[in-house]
Amino acid sequence: MKGVICCLKYISSVVVNKFVIEKSDMTIYCLNKKPHPLMEKMKAYLGSLCREIWKIGRDDPRRIIHSLKVGFSLTSVSLLYLMEPLFKGVGQNAIWAVMTVVVVLEFTAGATLCKGLNRGFGTLLAASLAFLFEFIAREHGNVFSAVFIGASIFVIGTSTTFLRFFPKIKKNYDYGVLVFLLTFNLITISSYRVDDILKLAKGRTYMIGIGSGICVVMSLFIFPNWSGEDLHNHTISKIEGLAISIQACVTKYFGDEEPNSEIDETMEDPIYENYKAVLDSKSIDETLARHASWEPRNTWQCHKFPCQQYVKLGGVLRHFGYGVVALHGSLQTEIRTPRSVRLLFKESCTHLASEVTKALMTLAGSIKNRRHCSPELLTEPIRQALQDLDTTLKSQPRLFLGPNSPFNTPKMLATTSRQKFEHHLSNMNTDSPKGVSDVKKVLRPSLSKLAITSLEFSEALPIAAFVALMVELVARLDFVIEEVENLAKVACFKEFKEGGDVV
Amino acid sequence: MKGVICCLKYISSVVVNKFVIEKSDMTIYCLNKKPHPLMEKMKAYLGSLCREIWKIGRDDPRRIIHSLKVGFSLTSVSLLYLMEPLFKGVGQNAIWAVMTVVVVLEFTAGATLCKGLNRGFGTLLAASLAFLFEFIAREHGNVFSAVFIGASIFVIGTSTTFLRFFPKIKKNYDYGVLVFLLTFNLITISSYRVDDILKLAKGRTYMIGIGSGICVVMSLFIFPNWSGEDLHNHTISKIEGLAISIQACVTKYFGDEEPNSEIDETMEDPIYENYKAVLDSKSIDETLARHASWEPRNTWQCHKFPCQQYVKLGGVLRHFGYGVVALHGSLQTEIRTPRSVRLLFKESCTHLASEVTKALMTLAGSIKNRRHCSPELLTEPIRQALQDLDTTLKSQPRLFLGPNSPFNTPKMLATTSRQKFEHHLSNMNTDSPKGVSDVKKVLRPSLSKLAITSLEFSEALPIAAFVALMVELVARLDFVIEEVENLAKVACFKEFKEGGDVV
Repeated sequence: MKGVICCLKYISSVVVNKFVIEKSDMTIYCLNKKPHPLMEKMKAYLGSLCREIWKIGRDDPRRIIHSLKVGFSLTSVSLLYLMEPLFKGVGQNAIWAVMTVVVVLEFTAGATLCKGLNRGFGTLLAASLAFLFEFIAREHGNVFSAVFIGASIFVIGTSTTFLRFFPKIKKNYDYGVLVFLLTFNLITISSYRVDDILKLAKGRTYMIGIGSGICVVMSLFIFPNWSGEDLHNHTISKIEGLAISIQACVTKYFGDEEPNSEIDETMEDPIYENYKAVLDSKSIDETLARHASWEPRNTWQCHKFPCQQYVKLGGVLRHFGYGVVALHGSLQTEIRTPRSVRLLFKESCTHLASEVTKALMTLAGSIKNRRHCSPELLTEPIRQALQDLDTTLKSQPRLFLGPNSPFNTPKMLATTSRQKFEHHLSNMNTDSPKGVSDVKKVLRPSLSKLAITSLEFSEALPIAAFVALMVELVARLDFVIEEVENLAKVACFKEFKEGGDVV
Repeated sequence: MKGVICCLKYISSVVVNKFVIEKSDMTIYCLNKKPHPLMEKMKAYLGSLCREIWKIGRDDPRRIIHSLKVGFSLTSVSLLYLMEPLFKGVGQNAIWAVMTVVVVLEFTAGATLCKGLNRGFGTLLAASLAFLFEFIAREHGNVFSAVFIGASIFVIGTSTTFLRFFPKIKKNYDYGVLVFLLTFNLITISSYRVDDILKLAKGRTYMIGIGSGICVVMSLFIFPNWSGEDLHNHTISKIEGLAISIQACVTKYFGDEEPNSEIDETMEDPIYENYKAVLDSKSIDETLARHASWEPRNTWQCHKFPCQQYVKLGGVLRHFGYGVVALHGSLQTEIRTPRSVRLLFKESCTHLASEVTKALMTLAGSIKNRRHCSPELLTEPIRQALQDLDTTLKSQPRLFLGPNSPFNTPKMLATTSRQKFEHHLSNMNTDSPKGVSDVKKVLRPSLSKLAITSLEFSEALPIAAFVALMVELVARLDFVIEEVENLAKVACFKEFKEGGDVV
């Protein structure tokens, strides 16, 4: 509404302005040859509009095709009305075909089928119930009939609306229930005044059938867009986005540039851009999977499109994504580990990151080509990179003794297998809490006291946290590999091939 | 559809079964007095259905009220049709009022207004355009008119559908554009056959007006549900959920129970239950905020409901939530730090967690009571708890020297301000990468080689990671406090009061 009002205001101001120019300033305007600022503005606005239209069309050319499909379908149903011989056959009911096309024809085949079948079954059920009620009402007098119809509308209206709160129904059949309620009311009410309600209903049903038929043909056979395909591609792009983010995080961390310390700025960060699609993907995944579940299989490879497996993989990717958020967070600390210390770990961290990235890209490629991947081949280089990192950690200077030597430790420690514990401790070098320097950074402006506390933590901590998070990501990667393998099994992907397809 | 088919199958099987029983087994059935298994099943099904209905109604009694409101509204518009004097006034057009009520009346006032106004403006714009086109078409012959109408339907259909892909329009005006397309087609097509299209349009517009009026009255004045209120309460419950999760995580971590090491099990974990609403809250928040932006203010405190500030706070809470996910993740490691070591940190960690929890609960309470909170009072105990933790860390045994003493460090280190660096290092005790033991756990079944690598990392690492994540959460808490304060400013909350209201 606000937009419409704005638009109207703008148009009216332009018109008024134009009028004024025409009436009085025309000569000056023509003499000066200098375009009016409003005209300039309008030109700029039109330019940006054109650019946006171009961008939307270029981003996904299927949008243009879909728009043309809708236009074509509407024109063809309107022929029922416009052409004399057809109109004689169908009459005024033709508007129901138009209505059906406008409401049912959606972008993907799954969404169209979901809406169309919901509409069809909703209408059929409502019509049956309405005729039953009409049959009861007709037996009695006019007053009873009116009261009975009123009461049944109240009861059905209330109970149907309540039904829409059931989570399962809300998720899958919400539109069907709405259409049921609508049709039931229309038929019940009409039946009170129209005698031959059956003829009316039949005529409308035919028209709805024709409309639905056009929608089905358009969505299934003419340049079809499959929700299943969208879900498949969306999953691939999410995995690729995560891979790019990790690589970018590591490159930036070990690069020479100053860190970007403002959280607001990160919102337009290319790293953030790449993984943000993963974090909020739940509703998109579920919608696409729901629509895909209505689609007939469009390949001969497998019995059924495994939409639930994609949703599950989406969940694991989100879990992985939370790890990337944490990794990205460690770029945003104000205190950085001195460059020289960072350099010590640069090679092994970059190596590990590039192996993780490579693994993710291979997974994305295997989904893209619908081909099994080999978990062993994926994890072997990661194992080596981890070992590499482990060696680097061990070869670096240990943490040294503080005022308490290990032999001054509290008695509690003595009760555990201290030898073992100490062995493990010796493996830990600069590993440390990542958040600490975050605390310092974010708390400084408002909470100076907290900042003082956190100052006692170390400047060298971030590198340790960074390494820790990298290792954590490897752990989560395992879940991703597992789910991709499950998907490959359920979706009957092709056998693994050494070298693979060209991705 | 699947549900409907299932239901029909079930009903038919019950009916057939019943028939068989009646025909043949009746005597045996009666003699045995043992209920048939199918009857038992049906009883159980009905029982569970009743329980679900009861649960849905009890969870949010406004649902029952809303259902009754819909029933009542439908009955009242159907009176237009059922009562003789009213019907004489409006005629067949009454069905448009019914249609409007079914489609427009939504659960919250904001959603109803959003849909109603979109519908209203869409209809008006479409009608204006359609009359303009009809005016042009009428001037010429019948054939030209038909071609012109067909072409305009194609052009408008295509361009309107393309318009729906614009993100801004899709977000706010999608329904309005749909109604525009529908109305435009209906009027344009009808105008070809009906002479007095203006009268027809006027009649329908009145009916749509009556329907919309009933919807507005029902949603704004009779037991209104405000999207703004929902958003407010949703925000409060998210903060409370996070607080409960943190407390539960710490309690579980320092408890005696065995850790829950399966990721699938955590899906029904009470800790997960409490924070999961936060992670996937983006679409809910945005929908509620969008609807709330259409609502008139329902209090006199503030000029406008600050829905965007709630969305922003939701974003910060999600960011905080990712931290809680990481904290929760550290409960799921297979190797745990020996209990005696954990006990060393138990008190200070529990203290910090309870202070963070308390702060979150205070924030939730301050939003609930629409009262400013005092960031200083909130952060002072946290500061003390952090200092406490810092002291505990310092008093614990340091990591001891490995084969390389600090004086054998590579030359690179020497170039940095080593004194400072070493001072910081000395503050780091058992801080370490959290993910390592995760790696061991998750990789063991499939990736045994990786597991061997990770075994070289330490058993004592998890406690360090846990502490690090707690400190990280404190850092993120600061953003939450800041956003709540911003919200308090924008939403004109009451002045801060020592002691506060009873929460």
